Amino acid sequence: MADFKLTTLEEMETATNRLLETGAKVGADGWQMRVKNQTPHCKFGEQGICCRICTMGPCRITPKAPRGVCGCDAHGIVGRNFLRFTAGGAATHSDHGRAICETLRCAAPDGAYKVKDPEKLIRIAKEWGVETEGVDIYDLAHKMAKLALEEYGKVDGFQNWLSRAPQHTQDLWKKAGIAPRAIDREVSCAMHMTHMGCSSKPEALIRQALRNGLSDGWGGSMAGTEFSDVMFGTPRPIDTEANLGVMKAEDVNIVVHGHDPSLSELICDWSENPEMIALAKSVGAKGITVSGVCCTSNEVAMRRGIPMAGNFLQQENVVLTGACEAIVVDVQCIFPGLGPLSKCFHTKFVTTSPIAQMPDSDYIEFDPENANESAKAIVTMAIENFKNRKPELVYIPDMKQKATVGYSVEAIVKTLDGVTNSQVDVTGTTKPLLECITSGVIRGAVAMVGCNNPRVRPDYAHVELMKKLIANDIVIIASGCSAQAAAKAGLMSKEAKDLCGAGLKRVCELADIPPVLHMGSCVDISRMMVLAATLAKDSGLNISQLPVVGCAPEWMSEKAVSIGNYVVATGLDTFLGVDPYVSGSDQVTELLTNGVRDWVEAAYVVEKDIDKLGDLMIQRIEEKREALGI
Amino acid sequence: MADFKLTTLEEMETATNRLLETGAKVGADGWQMRVKNQTPHCKFGEQGICCRICTMGPCRITPKAPRGVCGCDAHGIVGRNFLRFTAGGAATHSDHGRAICETLRCAAPDGAYKVKDPEKLIRIAKEWGVETEGVDIYDLAHKMAKLALEEYGKVDGFQNWLSRAPQHTQDLWKKAGIAPRAIDREVSCAMHMTHMGCSSKPEALIRQALRNGLSDGWGGSMAGTEFSDVMFGTPRPIDTEANLGVMKAEDVNIVVHGHDPSLSELICDWSENPEMIALAKSVGAKGITVSGVCCTSNEVAMRRGIPMAGNFLQQENVVLTGACEAIVVDVQCIFPGLGPLSKCFHTKFVTTSPIAQMPDSDYIEFDPENANESAKAIVTMAIENFKNRKPELVYIPDMKQKATVGYSVEAIVKTLDGVTNSQVDVTGTTKPLLECITSGVIRGAVAMVGCNNPRVRPDYAHVELMKKLIANDIVIIASGCSAQAAAKAGLMSKEAKDLCGAGLKRVCELADIPPVLHMGSCVDISRMMVLAATLAKDSGLNISQLPVVGCAPEWMSEKAVSIGNYVVATGLDTFLGVDPYVSGSDQVTELLTNGVRDWVEAAYVVEKDIDKLGDLMIQRIEEKREALGI
Repeated sequence: MADFKLTTLEEMETATNRLLETGAKVGADGWQMRVKNQTPHCKFGEQGICCRICTMGPCRITPKAPRGVCGCDAHGIVGRNFLRFTAGGAATHSDHGRAICETLRCAAPDGAYKVKDPEKLIRIAKEWGVETEGVDIYDLAHKMAKLALEEYGKVDGFQNWLSRAPQHTQDLWKKAGIAPRAIDREVSCAMHMTHMGCSSKPEALIRQALRNGLSDGWGGSMAGTEFSDVMFGTPRPIDTEANLGVMKAEDVNIVVHGHDPSLSELICDWSENPEMIALAKSVGAKGITVSGVCCTSNEVAMRRGIPMAGNFLQQENVVLTGACEAIVVDVQCIFPGLGPLSKCFHTKFVTTSPIAQMPDSDYIEFDPENANESAKAIVTMAIENFKNRKPELVYIPDMKQKATVGYSVEAIVKTLDGVTNSQVDVTGTTKPLLECITSGVIRGAVAMVGCNNPRVRPDYAHVELMKKLIANDIVIIASGCSAQAAAKAGLMSKEAKDLCGAGLKRVCELADIPPVLHMGSCVDISRMMVLAATLAKDSGLNISQLPVVGCAPEWMSEKAVSIGNYVVATGLDTFLGVDPYVSGSDQVTELLTNGVRDWVEAAYVVEKDIDKLGDLMIQRIEEKREALGI
Repeated sequence: MADFKLTTLEEMETATNRLLETGAKVGADGWQMRVKNQTPHCKFGEQGICCRICTMGPCRITPKAPRGVCGCDAHGIVGRNFLRFTAGGAATHSDHGRAICETLRCAAPDGAYKVKDPEKLIRIAKEWGVETEGVDIYDLAHKMAKLALEEYGKVDGFQNWLSRAPQHTQDLWKKAGIAPRAIDREVSCAMHMTHMGCSSKPEALIRQALRNGLSDGWGGSMAGTEFSDVMFGTPRPIDTEANLGVMKAEDVNIVVHGHDPSLSELICDWSENPEMIALAKSVGAKGITVSGVCCTSNEVAMRRGIPMAGNFLQQENVVLTGACEAIVVDVQCIFPGLGPLSKCFHTKFVTTSPIAQMPDSDYIEFDPENANESAKAIVTMAIENFKNRKPELVYIPDMKQKATVGYSVEAIVKTLDGVTNSQVDVTGTTKPLLECITSGVIRGAVAMVGCNNPRVRPDYAHVELMKKLIANDIVIIASGCSAQAAAKAGLMSKEAKDLCGAGLKRVCELADIPPVLHMGSCVDISRMMVLAATLAKDSGLNISQLPVVGCAPEWMSEKAVSIGNYVVATGLDTFLGVDPYVSGSDQVTELLTNGVRDWVEAAYVVEKDIDKLGDLMIQRIEEKREALGI
């Protein structure tokens, strides 16, 4: 205990620099150099006042040119760009959800994909009014998969999942005209509204941005999370490790990267296969180590304890170790830079999805129908590549932390049951957590999410904010690359309780949890929505009254904006450390940081000073407490 | 006859300048000034090598910075931008189609919307395998509307309309992996593929661009056209007039602008209503004149002979006449500049669609359910605004041409039947036209389409190319703002036959048609696809073998790129006068102008020298003839 120590950013940066030295030897560089080359960025783009929506332009707003060729002003341009940004994110997350539903359609008792959590499947079926009694679980899976896929294109009605939200929230959505219809329709609608000569009124554009976001968080992403759980198991607490040190020099190292567990689950399966392990030994390796990067790593860490090599801005580092036989990717957040980089090493860069095809990669198409064959071929390719490793280039930083991950909503409730006096209390609710909050032992909760972004010193904001918040007795639920930042630093170790305030520390000890709870990948922010809804229902409060806020301090992707929109639209104030290209319009900025509060009882806060961002979150949580008189 | 003379561009420009003088008096300017302010445009944007898809950037490709922060190169960035451009257009056109289907769902014998062409409805129902015998036509309309709406989101299968294409074309689509699935899904798929860290391989991006385009032309747009015909009547030849001179100083002038006939049809209905005409007279007007701008104008011109005030870049001119009581808009291609401009005059700028909400407008929401009430309110508002006209500002250029419009595929076939010897020939086919082409009396056909764009002297390319082509015995089918350019100049007058080569002139006389056939609005380019398919089937040739090409010499919108993609993917070479922001990648440029030919037997040609563009089209047509030995 006494020797527990967080890994510092300085230590991580030293390791990265050492890896970049290896890169320099073979003529490879990383994102650090590209950032340098791309700096300074275009100010018009940064402010959101560049429009390329038709070929009369491109147009840029300046004091001397206050309108584009069509007559659109800065507010219309910024609003349209923001809506399109959202549409990109919502489409992306939701299409991931669709792929999961398609995979579920192929589930079979003797197939590559099985129903590992039949109870959850039945629970969802009942929610949707589907008969479950006496129905074969695979028939039910196929029926539910089809119904879930219909949510993407149904002609009438709103998203099925909305009924999970408190009635008050649902009423707000209807009243504001932002209850999402078919998922893909909201994307098309966003694209149409932002077409040349359509909407230029910020209010209309921002409303659709919220609706499009909700179609993701209470639509496509929720489908992705829920049916992943059905197939791969609902996460429960499990021990793992994080940071580059999880790679093993003596093993064949396969790194999975991307988002869709349909691929990574099978890569893990095959890497544990005795035939494959024997093959690995036959080529001189001790075994096979699978580790992960980015959200696909979160998926397999949460369900199988697969170690996490790193988050978004660490993706090139795994190749730079010289010990990566294959980096196997599915979709999203994959640097095209991995193509040329992998060519400087022996690493196979294996792309697998029609959605993410990249130059300089080995493309092995992966679909639910041929999943086992493809996965086996990929693992075999990695093993056979072990012999091509150049020992003189191998350097794996000796750096990793223990982490306990896997806090799905179900797991959190179960953990809370463990501290409940089952003689007098009801189990299966969030009430013990609410009691901790009401009594002030825990002041509130922050959902820490989002990416890394070179605009912020990598992981700095994630780690520093978490340290500050837990010291102030605020519990963290984390997902995506934020979760991995925590894990790499050591904040998901149960020993990190010592960094907490007295109240939270006591709770960590009592419940045997780390102060930063790993809730999964970025689609899994839908879990956080379910948790917020459950807390609201269990407490009788509105979501917006809870002392809970969201924070994405280092975000970079369109998905993050879609997420932000649905988190705000769900009633949770959301704190950003990176500006979403809207500073060029005071009207759009006002709407996002204030105006939307009239519709959804929450809004954005943008603050690039990370320390201030933390203070603002604590302040907001205390304001919420005060309003509740707790 | 002898006094027939085209209206020259110089005459039109003189009129425009006179109108801008009026504008100057009241402190208003037009797009001309905004173009000046926005020139020069950003070179990165023009070349397609600026990426704003995540907030690690924006990134710009230069020799010193050949990759973005993520490592994406120029080819990936250009390809992604091109695909997103397509997605914007496909979503937009298709969403217009969806609105038409939604309107059809509300059709009722005593309602605002009726089934005016039951025969066409039955024909489509039979194509789709829907029972029609003994079914009430409104029940059938509602059923077909629902089925058509399901094409936007169906879980499995390809677009229903694809079966209209020749088998060879369908086979090419399947083989190339570009047969479109659900319409909205293709939009979401495009957005996902272009998300940060997904596809950066040009081939993958361009394939999806073709598929997304096809989901428009053989999906959403086709639904828009076909069901508009069902409700509002399939166009047949009708006389009208074109250019600003169609507005009448003594009348209440209502200008309809946009794309969706659901609005403009009812505005026309109500403007013909005796109660409204009486109201107009009571305020001192002689009557009510409805004229149109842009594609909604094409819609009501083709079906009702409503005169065309102008095309895209003429939209501000109608306000500058000082005689426009209301410019009533629905969706797409509406200058936000109309807001501040209309404030300088008495003109009411009336927005009506949730999709196109703009500042400085009167918003009167219009939907199929409240259509009559809204239309009546709008017409009443316009009439009551007549008194606010400032006579000293009124100047309507005395400039208009006769035009015969309304050449749907059905109308073309019927016209051809008229020149068929019904004793020996089969009627109801395109064979007479094919005979003219085979014999060389007509050399071929060009589909002239697309917008205006200040990058090209307005209408210059449309008019000059048409003059050149008809002089070379090439018949023109035209749509959208290209059609209106022709009509304004006089090329849709039957008297324009005198500008044709001897062969085409003889055909025009025999068939009593103008040499430039008006096929409708921009969604109606789906009509051209049906015509091409019919010609191929009637001739036994593949579409790509026909001496027919497409041309968009002054295009500006995303819709135009979606159109270009489906025209090319249908097998017709497409000639552009404006570069689609792809010059920054030789790989993408090569694919679009050559590589795609391997998949779909056609490609793009981009040539900014308009005269050369014409020569290239004639050359291509003659090459096709030569290959056929005709």
